[in-house]
Amino acid sequence: MTLELLSEHGCHGGVQRFYRHASTVIGLPMRFSVYLPPQALAGGGKLPTLFYLAGLTCTEETFMIKAGAQRFAAEHGLVLIAPDTSPRGAGVPGEADAWDFGVGAGFYVDATEAPWSQHWRMESYVTQELFDLVSRELPVDPDRVGIFGHSMGGHGALVLAQRHPQRFRSVSAFAPIAAPTQCPWGRKAFTGYLGADRAAWMDYDASALMSRQTRPPFPEGILVDQGLSDEFLEAQLNPAAFEAACASVGQPLILRRHEAYDHGYYFISTFIGDHIHFHASILAGRSRPMLTRTSTVR
Amino acid sequence: MTLELLSEHGCHGGVQRFYRHASTVIGLPMRFSVYLPPQALAGGGKLPTLFYLAGLTCTEETFMIKAGAQRFAAEHGLVLIAPDTSPRGAGVPGEADAWDFGVGAGFYVDATEAPWSQHWRMESYVTQELFDLVSRELPVDPDRVGIFGHSMGGHGALVLAQRHPQRFRSVSAFAPIAAPTQCPWGRKAFTGYLGADRAAWMDYDASALMSRQTRPPFPEGILVDQGLSDEFLEAQLNPAAFEAACASVGQPLILRRHEAYDHGYYFISTFIGDHIHFHASILAGRSRPMLTRTSTVR
Repeated sequence: MTLELLSEHGCHGGVQRFYRHASTVIGLPMRFSVYLPPQALAGGGKLPTLFYLAGLTCTEETFMIKAGAQRFAAEHGLVLIAPDTSPRGAGVPGEADAWDFGVGAGFYVDATEAPWSQHWRMESYVTQELFDLVSRELPVDPDRVGIFGHSMGGHGALVLAQRHPQRFRSVSAFAPIAAPTQCPWGRKAFTGYLGADRAAWMDYDASALMSRQTRPPFPEGILVDQGLSDEFLEAQLNPAAFEAACASVGQPLILRRHEAYDHGYYFISTFIGDHIHFHASILAGRSRPMLTRTSTVR
Repeated sequence: MTLELLSEHGCHGGVQRFYRHASTVIGLPMRFSVYLPPQALAGGGKLPTLFYLAGLTCTEETFMIKAGAQRFAAEHGLVLIAPDTSPRGAGVPGEADAWDFGVGAGFYVDATEAPWSQHWRMESYVTQELFDLVSRELPVDPDRVGIFGHSMGGHGALVLAQRHPQRFRSVSAFAPIAAPTQCPWGRKAFTGYLGADRAAWMDYDASALMSRQTRPPFPEGILVDQGLSDEFLEAQLNPAAFEAACASVGQPLILRRHEAYDHGYYFISTFIGDHIHFHASILAGRSRPMLTRTSTVR
């Protein structure tokens, strides 16, 4: 499996790269983006790394060009990895008919229903193939990896972190779909990818997973930011369900609700520095991230 | 003339807005974007303001979503204004046939050649109509306005600042088309918009204008950043011409050449903080911006 470098751009003393590779798990070419901080170029060995999972309709480029994350990754010496949000080019009938299912909407699950089950295997792609690939080919320390994401990708981060705790040591989310079995986006996706049996859905619902934990999976805490002017908050996101699930198992959660912020990257860019600082602290083994429930805008 | 608010997004404690208005100068609806920092929402009166002019193919959104400027505008209490890059919807035959002329490529001139002269009047639009509009309707202090831009917009900033020194007190540029009469982009645009008489072109060439100055127009200095891996550097940009022109009239210029940076927003986002700090210092009346020729990446 070889990495094809599509482009490279100087950025905050490091390099922003875009790669393509033939994915065995997906069965198609996949693209992803990587930010290597200056510490990586200076031969600093394997570095702590953050996987970012993007939301509906996004690609591997969205986060890197809109979030302003590289400034903080450079400051903390973190590698950033952002996969695409679904297979592309599979040719499944109807795959691009909706913006919230199919292309650009993989939901980070391994589909079990035909025709999606052949290619839509984003969980295995992210947590196994891509994880191993970047650990092998790039200065990524597989023992210091965190995961975060936005909306559908916030769901992905909260779910994959719980399902693969041996891979991800820290987790945070922006406006996650926190209880997908209870919202239209999630029900549509899970019906399509996982079938009608709702029991299977529970394995990919962040709140359901958390409520079944026997002890707090992330004792250093989980950070979630949510805008209160988010147009999807009421119908789709349900952070209160995740908050209740965390409380029920004693999982420390910093859930910050921000007036006047919506669902987009102007919101994410405002708080991205806090998230990278949060992960950097945990991945560096410092005892407790310096964050409170108080918003730290500016 | 009324402002129609198209959208508003919380961002770094302030608000990112997108407006549309019926432009008298252009004769069509025009869009622009505004970032109001927290100081504006707190009733801080009229604030120092930066106009940003974007490059070929961009819109009023590009800078605001890609540059990461709001973090620094919030820090310094600056308003940001970004106009669109050309008229849209004029219906001039061939207006969208090329990416470097017509729609998305106004070059910030007042066209004198038909059919462009009816609508393509971006100089008057930016320096008069939009300037006056935002000064009247938004917390913009017309006596503390700077201008900057990228590529075609860097050309626009360096030219409009020199042609309207009573309006712009500070100026900087990212990878500007610094001598458009000497490059393919500029010759194509000026032939189309201004006609075959090259004497008219000189009035819109930043280097030609500077070489004709009788004294340094910006005694506090001009800041220009240029990536050395910029794919357009050799054929289109020519910063050395502007450097020589500044030297010939004693205009202080900080021209920083950065290895490994290209023409895109990963480059701009790396140095955006320096530019906003540079303008804020001048607009605040502080004696000298804290910048040197040394790159201050990270």
